[in-house]
Amino acid sequence: MPVNPNAAIEITAFRWVPEFAQGVVRDLRVRWALEEAGLDYRVRLLDQNRPPDYLLEQPFDQVPCFKDGEVRIFESGAIVQYIGEQTEVLLPADKQERYRAIQWTYGALNSVEPAILNLLLIDIFYAGEEWAKLRRPGAEDFVKVKLKRVSDWLGDEEWLEGRFTIGDLLMVTVLRFLRHTELVAQFPNLSAYLKRGEARPAFQRALADQLANYAANEPQPEGAAA
Amino acid sequence: MPVNPNAAIEITAFRWVPEFAQGVVRDLRVRWALEEAGLDYRVRLLDQNRPPDYLLEQPFDQVPCFKDGEVRIFESGAIVQYIGEQTEVLLPADKQERYRAIQWTYGALNSVEPAILNLLLIDIFYAGEEWAKLRRPGAEDFVKVKLKRVSDWLGDEEWLEGRFTIGDLLMVTVLRFLRHTELVAQFPNLSAYLKRGEARPAFQRALADQLANYAANEPQPEGAAA
Repeated sequence: MPVNPNAAIEITAFRWVPEFAQGVVRDLRVRWALEEAGLDYRVRLLDQNRPPDYLLEQPFDQVPCFKDGEVRIFESGAIVQYIGEQTEVLLPADKQERYRAIQWTYGALNSVEPAILNLLLIDIFYAGEEWAKLRRPGAEDFVKVKLKRVSDWLGDEEWLEGRFTIGDLLMVTVLRFLRHTELVAQFPNLSAYLKRGEARPAFQRALADQLANYAANEPQPEGAAA
Repeated sequence: MPVNPNAAIEITAFRWVPEFAQGVVRDLRVRWALEEAGLDYRVRLLDQNRPPDYLLEQPFDQVPCFKDGEVRIFESGAIVQYIGEQTEVLLPADKQERYRAIQWTYGALNSVEPAILNLLLIDIFYAGEEWAKLRRPGAEDFVKVKLKRVSDWLGDEEWLEGRFTIGDLLMVTVLRFLRHTELVAQFPNLSAYLKRGEARPAFQRALADQLANYAANEPQPEGAAA
């Protein structure tokens, strides 16, 4: 099992998050990459109220941060790329194939994720606000355009560039942000792609380990017996 | 001059764009990186209406695409990283320093740019819409939070990780998307950082070459003398 309290690699994650965020917090991406690579890691759990000096490690106050000996980095895309560089399971050595995979990490995080997170924020955080009601149809249309672009590219292939890479790993985690909608299901090849990613044993182990932390730290209702 | 019709490296760019987009279209990032690296490149100019088969090169229908021999990639972040890997001017060889720079490319494009582009879209494309009027104060506040995070991290340093890297190159181009506002000016160290980036001779050459294409292809008013 890659989760190992004595591992050299450390990541940060939240002790607990509300249900809408369980299974999508970004440490999942890094856990998944570590599972694919077969690298042990330990987890430093943080409360939702992070200590102020966490900003010195992670200027955007997010999880995960990553340590491996003297290497200390943040940004899930960079961390996944770092892990990918250690194994051809995630990142081919061939120059062209390597950069085709890397381009899809940026594609997932810069060309697709912003449209999807915009819709997620409208649905989860701003659902009651007038602007959100007025904007939602346009925001959903914009997501559909992005999904169509990825669906058209994917076609009948299993993965974005012929074989599973860090680009697919990140794209699958981005598509998961739409799980509260039926949008991915409108693109059958993309829906199958998402399921194919989630079916990987490494993904399943990573998800189970993230959720196990939350289950172990579920807040008790006030007044519950100690 | 890196722009050279016989260069091995090719990028795509637009023949012309409206004034609000001039100087911020993403080929600027790649031109700048190529100038810093001293690599010659040629430009394949595209009309605003791209041919349908451009999607086979660039699934999101954006510029730039990049070719260098057998390497063909899209996504400006990936292209800038590819160029960075060819010169320590842009990307240090030391493992930790290298990944500190790479993390900031994702930081610029995933943690900062989405908030800024959201405000830009509200101001440029949706200014007349009711939802945009209602949402603008919140969208601006969100940008300020992001700018504060970067400003706090930067402190009194010249660059995000002590020396100029691809992370700074991308962050500077992201901050430029706010040029229609006074938001960056509210953070004096960030404003100086932006000016420091724009003052680099390589940036100035890249910008001049992008704008020269637009000037040469300015649409003529209907009815103008042929």
